[in-house]
Amino acid sequence: MSEKDLSRRGLIFGAGKLAVGAAGIAALSSGGFGLLSNANAGVTPAAAGTWPWPYEKLDPAETAEIAYNEWYRLFCGGAVISSVFSQLKEKVGGPYKDFPTDAFIFLEGGVSGWGTVCGSNAGANIVTNLIIGPRIGGSETGMLMGSEMLQWYSEANMPIYMPKEPKVKEELPKTTSGSPLCHVSVGTWMKASGKGLKSPERKDRCARVTASVAYHLVELLNQWKDGKYVTEGVVPATIHGIPAQDNCMSCHDEVPSPPVYTPPPAPKA
Amino acid sequence: MSEKDLSRRGLIFGAGKLAVGAAGIAALSSGGFGLLSNANAGVTPAAAGTWPWPYEKLDPAETAEIAYNEWYRLFCGGAVISSVFSQLKEKVGGPYKDFPTDAFIFLEGGVSGWGTVCGSNAGANIVTNLIIGPRIGGSETGMLMGSEMLQWYSEANMPIYMPKEPKVKEELPKTTSGSPLCHVSVGTWMKASGKGLKSPERKDRCARVTASVAYHLVELLNQWKDGKYVTEGVVPATIHGIPAQDNCMSCHDEVPSPPVYTPPPAPKA
Repeated sequence: MSEKDLSRRGLIFGAGKLAVGAAGIAALSSGGFGLLSNANAGVTPAAAGTWPWPYEKLDPAETAEIAYNEWYRLFCGGAVISSVFSQLKEKVGGPYKDFPTDAFIFLEGGVSGWGTVCGSNAGANIVTNLIIGPRIGGSETGMLMGSEMLQWYSEANMPIYMPKEPKVKEELPKTTSGSPLCHVSVGTWMKASGKGLKSPERKDRCARVTASVAYHLVELLNQWKDGKYVTEGVVPATIHGIPAQDNCMSCHDEVPSPPVYTPPPAPKA
Repeated sequence: MSEKDLSRRGLIFGAGKLAVGAAGIAALSSGGFGLLSNANAGVTPAAAGTWPWPYEKLDPAETAEIAYNEWYRLFCGGAVISSVFSQLKEKVGGPYKDFPTDAFIFLEGGVSGWGTVCGSNAGANIVTNLIIGPRIGGSETGMLMGSEMLQWYSEANMPIYMPKEPKVKEELPKTTSGSPLCHVSVGTWMKASGKGLKSPERKDRCARVTASVAYHLVELLNQWKDGKYVTEGVVPATIHGIPAQDNCMSCHDEVPSPPVYTPPPAPKA
């Protein structure tokens, strides 16, 4: 099956819709997640943790403003975490007081400048998984909301959010990355804009992308708080047979078929 | 300049060597880090944090054993964090007691199964940056050690570490990823081994990779504790003009030149 035959959104969000609702998620979890199931659930957790962490609804635009300004201190990943946790630290205290947000500045440039996952995506996944909790904590929603954020980021025409007092005054070119990777996202934008990595425009573009991610993240968290969140997230590895994003042809000339594992037949009783 | 003309190790580690020592790191920081410097250092930190976190030297093999077994509970990213922090929680307590390690299970499959950065690399960077601290906390060593781990991972013939009681008894094929990405690392190994994603061999391969990362991570942290660590880490974005790894030709037919920013001349006094 060539990826050319598939509508990307159709495949990913089609699959996501299959998983919607408690029954669907349970099916995804027990059936599709062969690679993701716990084989050793008896081990004592290293850090106990109690989930979900207390959450109060936040204002998306206010959060985006904080994220935008924090980018100039903590860059993409740290700024997304800070934009949510700094407010919750004031509103609810608790576990947010002890979380070492500043250490996550290293997510900049796709993890220490290596161009892997955009730090704003990593930061959003840290936020959803810390607030809603890990799937071994009782709910897969944190991981699926994080996955939905990666998909949303890949399809968004970025940057979306225009800060109230931008450091670069003019509108900036917008591009769609088709990828959650920093290298592809920043590279696509640099090519379209002709602006170098160290330019004020590139920096402000990444600050606005970070703000855009924080805005949408809080929209989803607020829906979840209201009990109205229906995930569009999936774990694409369970669909493709390899950890991957969904548009293989962006890098591959043709889609390789990963080897398939056939479990041995069950022993006779 | 074609990347074919360059020795990969020569380029990355050559650049690393330029940055070795306090003077070199300072030069990299103030000169090369145009994109990484803080433009807004007056903002109050969201989570104060005091670095470095207390660290006691750990046994690499013991840490690798914990990481291997924890993979079957928390997968690559969570297992690397747990292998170090669970021991330090016992030995020194302090900030390790409050860190929600289990939430980082979502790093599996390159962040929620998307195949981006291998979770063991993300976990190693979280560990170095939480223990040594973020560069806005006074030292760039945490970030540079994290970058060195990404480089080491990309060049290693994995899996290196053989656990004492492996769940899959036989030796497994070894491959070099040339990349810190889960998709490339797992995909390269699956192609070489012919084993599918859900096979016991693929799972045990990733558990052993996780153990290998934990082993080397603790080797570096122990050197640092002894005051003998000299980083080979760099921030490749500052070298290449785009957040990237160093072997462009793995994906590109030819190496595109990123646009270059020329700062305006300083105003006359």
